[in-house]
Amino acid sequence: MPQPYVKSFVDSTLSSLTESMDIQVSAGEPVENAHPDPLDGVVVVIGVTGDMEGRIIYSMTEETALKICEAMNYEPFESMNDLARSTISELANIIGGRAVSDLNDNGMKIMMSPPVMLTGKVIIVSDKLAGAILIPVESNFGPLWVNLAIASLAGAKK
Amino acid sequence: MPQPYVKSFVDSTLSSLTESMDIQVSAGEPVENAHPDPLDGVVVVIGVTGDMEGRIIYSMTEETALKICEAMNYEPFESMNDLARSTISELANIIGGRAVSDLNDNGMKIMMSPPVMLTGKVIIVSDKLAGAILIPVESNFGPLWVNLAIASLAGAKK
Repeated sequence: MPQPYVKSFVDSTLSSLTESMDIQVSAGEPVENAHPDPLDGVVVVIGVTGDMEGRIIYSMTEETALKICEAMNYEPFESMNDLARSTISELANIIGGRAVSDLNDNGMKIMMSPPVMLTGKVIIVSDKLAGAILIPVESNFGPLWVNLAIASLAGAKK
Repeated sequence: MPQPYVKSFVDSTLSSLTESMDIQVSAGEPVENAHPDPLDGVVVVIGVTGDMEGRIIYSMTEETALKICEAMNYEPFESMNDLARSTISELANIIGGRAVSDLNDNGMKIMMSPPVMLTGKVIIVSDKLAGAILIPVESNFGPLWVNLAIASLAGAKK
């Protein structure tokens, strides 16, 4: 693991997904200084403030997002309608919240802003704040990506 | 003004722009419950945590972004290169930081996550957290939009 906090996000992603729906998932090796390709799909951005600052970005194709919505709501989805959007936002919120709780339980004080969802042909521009770390997640619904750029503030507790 | 905090963002947007470069700007009337059109351009997302929670989204066409970069750096820009991206991120950070300082000076305790920049054909999906408020800003470099979805938390000081 490149940074200790990355493990919290890998664990929270896998446990939140498998506890929320019938899905098979596995996390690949985190990639440091990742340059994400343009993505035609669903992107959720969550800001992080406090002892660590940065952002969490979850992304997936629309196809994967719709399969997740079907598995969580027990009904078919053909497009990213209101319920689909709130399902994916809430899932991102659960994954992020669980990782942040885990970090806070270990002496950090971190807060998370509410998820912002974007769709379309999105290019996440890598930021200077910290080398972005990409966690690729494979699932039987298709791939998902967790892209982290979070830095400890000077003087913050490790 | 639909919400008292909106004025802080209108003021910070106009003052930050005019103090950072030679630009003529004016803010239009804020639009409540705005449904933004798909945008082919530059989008900056900033999360807000603390006594208020939500997000600030700045958006503009690439053409407007490049004109701003030229005016701030005194050199021509033909594409959103590294310097252009950091210029627009920093501008968003200045605008957001000034508004947040103003709100904190008035008794709030709000924190802001670092700017996340995205480019491409982006659709900002309106969130349920709060009716999004769109502040249209006209300038001689083209239009800019400030899209706010920020809610006071229950029990937070007004």
